[in-house]
Amino acid sequence: MTGAEAVLQTAAAAGVEVCFANPGTTEMALVHALDRAPQVRAVLGLFEGVCSGAADGFARMSGCPALTLLHLGAGLSNALANLHNARRARSPVVNLVGDQATWHREADAPLTSDIASLARPVSRWVRESRTSAGAAQDAAEAIAAAQEFPGGVATLILPSDCQGGEAPGPARPIPLALAPQPARDRIEGSAAALRREKNAALYLGGRALSARGQLAAGRIAQATGCRLISETFPARFERGAGLPRVDRLPYFPEWVASFLEGLRTLVLAAAPEPVAFFGYPGIPSRLTPEGCALLTLAAPDEDAESALDALADSLGAAAPAPAPAKRPEMPVGELTPEAVGTVLALLQPEGAIVVDESATTGLGYFPAAASSPRYSLLTLTGGSIGMGPPCAAGAAIACPDRTVINFQGDGGAVYTLQALWTQAREALHVVTLICSNRAYRVLQIESARAGVAEPGQKALSLTQLSRPDLDWVHLARGLGVPASRVDSVESLRRVLSVALAEEGPHLIDVVLSGAR
Amino acid sequence: MTGAEAVLQTAAAAGVEVCFANPGTTEMALVHALDRAPQVRAVLGLFEGVCSGAADGFARMSGCPALTLLHLGAGLSNALANLHNARRARSPVVNLVGDQATWHREADAPLTSDIASLARPVSRWVRESRTSAGAAQDAAEAIAAAQEFPGGVATLILPSDCQGGEAPGPARPIPLALAPQPARDRIEGSAAALRREKNAALYLGGRALSARGQLAAGRIAQATGCRLISETFPARFERGAGLPRVDRLPYFPEWVASFLEGLRTLVLAAAPEPVAFFGYPGIPSRLTPEGCALLTLAAPDEDAESALDALADSLGAAAPAPAPAKRPEMPVGELTPEAVGTVLALLQPEGAIVVDESATTGLGYFPAAASSPRYSLLTLTGGSIGMGPPCAAGAAIACPDRTVINFQGDGGAVYTLQALWTQAREALHVVTLICSNRAYRVLQIESARAGVAEPGQKALSLTQLSRPDLDWVHLARGLGVPASRVDSVESLRRVLSVALAEEGPHLIDVVLSGAR
Repeated sequence: MTGAEAVLQTAAAAGVEVCFANPGTTEMALVHALDRAPQVRAVLGLFEGVCSGAADGFARMSGCPALTLLHLGAGLSNALANLHNARRARSPVVNLVGDQATWHREADAPLTSDIASLARPVSRWVRESRTSAGAAQDAAEAIAAAQEFPGGVATLILPSDCQGGEAPGPARPIPLALAPQPARDRIEGSAAALRREKNAALYLGGRALSARGQLAAGRIAQATGCRLISETFPARFERGAGLPRVDRLPYFPEWVASFLEGLRTLVLAAAPEPVAFFGYPGIPSRLTPEGCALLTLAAPDEDAESALDALADSLGAAAPAPAPAKRPEMPVGELTPEAVGTVLALLQPEGAIVVDESATTGLGYFPAAASSPRYSLLTLTGGSIGMGPPCAAGAAIACPDRTVINFQGDGGAVYTLQALWTQAREALHVVTLICSNRAYRVLQIESARAGVAEPGQKALSLTQLSRPDLDWVHLARGLGVPASRVDSVESLRRVLSVALAEEGPHLIDVVLSGAR
Repeated sequence: MTGAEAVLQTAAAAGVEVCFANPGTTEMALVHALDRAPQVRAVLGLFEGVCSGAADGFARMSGCPALTLLHLGAGLSNALANLHNARRARSPVVNLVGDQATWHREADAPLTSDIASLARPVSRWVRESRTSAGAAQDAAEAIAAAQEFPGGVATLILPSDCQGGEAPGPARPIPLALAPQPARDRIEGSAAALRREKNAALYLGGRALSARGQLAAGRIAQATGCRLISETFPARFERGAGLPRVDRLPYFPEWVASFLEGLRTLVLAAAPEPVAFFGYPGIPSRLTPEGCALLTLAAPDEDAESALDALADSLGAAAPAPAPAKRPEMPVGELTPEAVGTVLALLQPEGAIVVDESATTGLGYFPAAASSPRYSLLTLTGGSIGMGPPCAAGAAIACPDRTVINFQGDGGAVYTLQALWTQAREALHVVTLICSNRAYRVLQIESARAGVAEPGQKALSLTQLSRPDLDWVHLARGLGVPASRVDSVESLRRVLSVALAEEGPHLIDVVLSGAR
């Protein structure tokens, strides 16, 4: 068999189910090998940022590694922004990047470039295969590296001769180590601190935001009275009825300051210490209040769920009575950002996956959906916009029986709108709500925060998505997705209800009041 | 003044006229500084690949350096593919990439990443500013590095505190060195070889494809009988009536083999030795025929125009009679790729700028337009698709009095379709011809060349842009550009004539016969 066939059969044996691909000439051996690996589904993205974002979404929802197939440095470049988000989400993603044949590299043909230098900033593991006989073992190690707890991005560069040449056969999957357990004294130290200090909080990130992690956290809060706080941008946050109340750390550092004011003890569970998203003059990087003790129960690369269970047990904590499902009231009046979030929280079905890149529009959604029926919330972990539409496609492929809702800002959506085509081709049940405020609103807010009273002409023009307005109904139809426009609470309610009840993708252009 | 103001005033003093921007929070000081630098036009792209492609197009047509303004590693990532093309085009482009404040880096906030590692593969010069007082001098050096003959990409990383902090004032522009002159013995050696060997060719790239370079090459051909051949993917190729016949090196290496068969001497003028685009089994990397002597008249970083003038003079060569303008005949029959190229060659106005990313559809266009009225041809130098729409926008900004035609494959167009919005906002006269064959046709050809008689289901699905078809009329309208669809030679002729005569942008979806 060829090196490419050996690579894909190794992947299939390791449990890989899907390859998000945008191949070129140097990947044709891998393309043909896909036809000999029936276990691996091939999904085309019309831009590589779709492939990497979909791989991230698939990995977040399935826990299984997803492949991307990319065309040399050019293709990898286009995938990088969403690979950055996948890195921050700790998603197991394996990039297979074709390259010039090993013997052709020195000719410096036009597409030749330093792929490893591009890959390193987003990858925990980078290797270039040197022979077709060794490519399968390289792939096995790449997959194992991506799966090493809690997950990450691995990049395997496969020169075309290593794909096309002869290989003895697939490599054996590498057994995975168990998640590292935090030392016992950290559990005891956290228990003692939470017993001692009433003004304390448990800060939850990563796997601590699973249902299991939160149920343990709820017992701990019940026993000690501590607050439960999530990181600002979780990779996957199980939410809704039956889970304890977990507040979300705000975005702007001055909001964090008042949110955490008076806190005396902060216990970290799979989350790094809270830091400001950006460095603002006069505001510290680290947001733990002065005089607040900082303890680590579990680091992000340790088994936080077991640690939370053990902490709850050591406190002798009983489970609180589960809160019932409770929908918000139907809003009245203008189609404000808060109203959009409330209508979504009201209508989203049980088991929904909400991919939230709504940016400033979504501020009201998080509290509104706190007691909705159980759902999964996926957020913009790395801050690199354009995650939403591809991530929604990947999540839908991972969970074909669940409804995926992409709650999406217009500025981010236009980065990777090509994902709509993949949603149409694969007939995915993704309902996209485009929040059309026709601006990079967060930049306008940042400008005001920085004390710029009256931005100049150019500053205004660089933060407005208008002249001309984007017409999302046309854009979606151009990519094969049925679409509607709404500009009132009532029309949003009606159109969203229908879209959720139908099959396949649908896009709703939600024109916010003030943007008409 | 702030460091950001000092940077932009330094750029303005160095002759920078335009900044293609997609800023974020870490670039807000630069955004506000743009309002205090009236000499620098700010153009918003809704995706960073638009900014970098437009900067490349602007630089190719103006010869002046263009700025991009990008948001940390995420924004630079999205710009990389077209920066790769700019690197191969040797276009003077200066990336200003904002970053976390120097003191905030160690907090490892979500958007933090290794920007320099991302920048190096596309940049000849990379630096990170360390102080606001030094940022202007860094900018002056970045601009000089980008302009060093013949041009290239420079990346300056500007942490937000280096933008916002105090600076003493702008830095003085750095005087540019003249283009290096090839040694006299290379001119004499080339003259002797071309006098001696009748079966010889002059291989023209870079600046050798200017009108001046070609007119000198025409004299050399007239005197010696040598053939004139251009590189396959020139950055800027002046063409049309009054210039000598210059053939283009074919793409596939077996075509090159028959094209160059029997050649005994190849003289390089600002072009590297011909190499295969990819490494194919059994085909060498370097395509100079066996037994053919290879001489360098001018390296790509030497002054090829002066060298060609000197060579023509040393041969005592007279100018040939200029060939008159001659349009091809109007084609009849099906809307084949050849017919599309012929209609374009027939209708393109004098002084047109044709940005050609037509891939397989465009094969017939090059010979058809050989004797059209004078025009500039810009091609896909680096092979990273998605260059066309942004490059056309940048070329139109550089040359507001010329008509820009983007002759564009559908697969590449969907990579950076966001550029249409910038064309609409800036009211640029860009006419886009989308060649809708609904396939990555070149991959289907490569598959057949590799001997795959019947590609499998997945291989087929990964090379087809169908199920659903892209609707380019909807897509263009969604981005504010008027659009039409044509499916016959006659409707193409009619609609293209109107679009060329009108102002502003227009897109024509050319549905090729066989793709309906």
